[in-house]
Amino acid sequence: MKTEAEIRMRGFLRRTPVPELLDLIRKYCLPLENETVDLKHLGGRILAEPICSELDVPNFDRSAMDGYALKAEETFGASKYAPLSFEVVGEVTPGTRFEQTVDSGQAVRIMTGGPVPAGADAILVAEHAESEGDRIHVQEPVPPGKHIGFCGEDIRAGAPLFESGRKLRPQDIGLLSSVGMHEASVVRRPIIDFLITGNELLPPGSKPQGVSIVDSNSLMLRQLAERDGAEIGKILHLRDERETIRKAMLESEADLICVTGGTSVGLEDHAPTLLEEIGTLLVHGIPMRPAAPTGFGLIGPRKVFLLPGNPVSCLSAYDCFVGLAIRRLGGLPEEWPYRKTKLPLRSKIASQIGRIEYVRLQIQEGKAEPIASGGASILSSTTRADGFLLTQESSEGFAEGEEVELWLYD
Amino acid sequence: MKTEAEIRMRGFLRRTPVPELLDLIRKYCLPLENETVDLKHLGGRILAEPICSELDVPNFDRSAMDGYALKAEETFGASKYAPLSFEVVGEVTPGTRFEQTVDSGQAVRIMTGGPVPAGADAILVAEHAESEGDRIHVQEPVPPGKHIGFCGEDIRAGAPLFESGRKLRPQDIGLLSSVGMHEASVVRRPIIDFLITGNELLPPGSKPQGVSIVDSNSLMLRQLAERDGAEIGKILHLRDERETIRKAMLESEADLICVTGGTSVGLEDHAPTLLEEIGTLLVHGIPMRPAAPTGFGLIGPRKVFLLPGNPVSCLSAYDCFVGLAIRRLGGLPEEWPYRKTKLPLRSKIASQIGRIEYVRLQIQEGKAEPIASGGASILSSTTRADGFLLTQESSEGFAEGEEVELWLYD
Repeated sequence: MKTEAEIRMRGFLRRTPVPELLDLIRKYCLPLENETVDLKHLGGRILAEPICSELDVPNFDRSAMDGYALKAEETFGASKYAPLSFEVVGEVTPGTRFEQTVDSGQAVRIMTGGPVPAGADAILVAEHAESEGDRIHVQEPVPPGKHIGFCGEDIRAGAPLFESGRKLRPQDIGLLSSVGMHEASVVRRPIIDFLITGNELLPPGSKPQGVSIVDSNSLMLRQLAERDGAEIGKILHLRDERETIRKAMLESEADLICVTGGTSVGLEDHAPTLLEEIGTLLVHGIPMRPAAPTGFGLIGPRKVFLLPGNPVSCLSAYDCFVGLAIRRLGGLPEEWPYRKTKLPLRSKIASQIGRIEYVRLQIQEGKAEPIASGGASILSSTTRADGFLLTQESSEGFAEGEEVELWLYD
Repeated sequence: MKTEAEIRMRGFLRRTPVPELLDLIRKYCLPLENETVDLKHLGGRILAEPICSELDVPNFDRSAMDGYALKAEETFGASKYAPLSFEVVGEVTPGTRFEQTVDSGQAVRIMTGGPVPAGADAILVAEHAESEGDRIHVQEPVPPGKHIGFCGEDIRAGAPLFESGRKLRPQDIGLLSSVGMHEASVVRRPIIDFLITGNELLPPGSKPQGVSIVDSNSLMLRQLAERDGAEIGKILHLRDERETIRKAMLESEADLICVTGGTSVGLEDHAPTLLEEIGTLLVHGIPMRPAAPTGFGLIGPRKVFLLPGNPVSCLSAYDCFVGLAIRRLGGLPEEWPYRKTKLPLRSKIASQIGRIEYVRLQIQEGKAEPIASGGASILSSTTRADGFLLTQESSEGFAEGEEVELWLYD
């Protein structure tokens, strides 16, 4: 184990390649256990078990049109010039039943969704009959089965509805309701705590003053984590005091802990050494700019991310690593929620081999222009940007005019 | 004005072309008034007013690195072989201040984010000095201004931050926090009431029985409306009774009312004639399948949509019309939230000229296959589908192998 003095003020002993960090996240962040959730709150959740229908939907034969239920055979030969006459013996609307049987020469007026009465085997649409008192004059023949939605036409009892792992869409939840379910078993959403450290930080809502600045990371991270399906646990603003931070790390009951600030190798950077003491520091320092002082580790079952305090570093480290962890724990697909586009570059992007650059880009006249004032502390570079790209470790960047793929902020 | 008898059981008198309905929605659905919302809840909201910063961020010069603050000029000529010696007279961490002035031959140890002490004009990074007791031996020269983030480097006082109409991203909210704001003025989100009508319907959570089915629309619509930025008001399950529905329509205080079921021209279809009586029925019936019995109108300031009760019709009518209305009222861009893709068709799609078809498609081996069992009541056709397309009014459909653009359900 490295001593505190060895870690401090010396730069990172070894930077973990980004693919290695991603593999560690994949290894330690597996879908959480199941929980049962009411239909109302299932939107976007991930099914933990396959679902089969226990019943037929509908569980009766129903009319697909407004018209008349009758015996199809008896309409054969009907035409405008030689209409066939039927006695209307009743009416059936959705949710009601015609209690008798439709006999020869009889018809029952029926509304869309109404159950087809016994004895009838077709629906004649209203436009194909002239109504006169309690009789109709049928002007068109109708084949058997016409305009009847048969029992189980939507869903058959026993039919598989969804595989486990399905991300539930609005219509899926409608379907679960229609088969009589009121809840479903889904992957639990991870809870995330944020420990925001920094003596210079005032909580959001304050006015900046003197040598203090207002924390922006907690608000940004909260939105991002909610987007990725996490439940927000505690958001604590802590002073750069070893014991304070240790206590907060030990007391967390969340699935994920994000410590922001104090994650580098300076004198006040307690988080990495604390994580080494009370848990396991798996990664500290990555060859990525501006997120170099990123860390990852474990405290028992909890996954711990150390995110740089500089807001751009914090944003890029969240997006590349924490978001992935949240989505994996919640059973969601790994992919970024950003839309992608391809555009030529207006100016070149230089990158050092062995390092990944997080480059913010503005779209101007159909071209992508890297934002020059790109320091890690310049949050406004990410609000002026329309999107970003990551350079490859193996590349020296991109030439002017080269077509690049960028992710659009949203 | 049409009489009730004229409207009923006769088919639609005139179907309103879909572009005309869309124009009416655009005409009547304008962004709602502003409301003030706390930073925590601003994610995805639409700014109602442009925002300028009242102050500089940061409001002091700060160090961008861990190292030593000193006079740049005094380091000129330093090298590994001829290091220059400085006295370390103090330390400054973020949130603290070095109260004296850095004099000739002096250096102050400084951490990233710490305020640069008076008298110093550059930061020497820690790696470029050897520390020995209370002295450092500087091994590299550093130019003036190096590694200093100057007052206002992120944001200048008076600088415009966001235009009105901006959809706020996570980093935007961080930025608002950093300039000392704790709330912002955004477009109010529309409130939507759902009046779910149908004697055959059991509320969600019930088991289907006899000739009753379980309502699936309310759950589906709720998710869709939330996705589009609405606030859910009341969800009422009503019997097909004229007075019951009238009362609910009159008592709604929402911005939008969606009546589902009973929107066609049958005997039990009260909603269109009620809307004509107590408000204005602008549209009833459109040349679109399966959403033909769609209606739109007004009750005072409230926009009213009549959506067919069949779940596929309901889904497509929501997506084509209600979603647009919600997004416009909330100030959001009109576009569908669905991702788009282009694929060749596995089988042809036939469509009648003058009619728009809402076609559900499954993606199989890189091709789009229309789902055959496509009745309006077959909700499972939308859960088996990966996406959908709309045919053009002026087209007879698409040939097998033709490349089509489809929207992916999510």
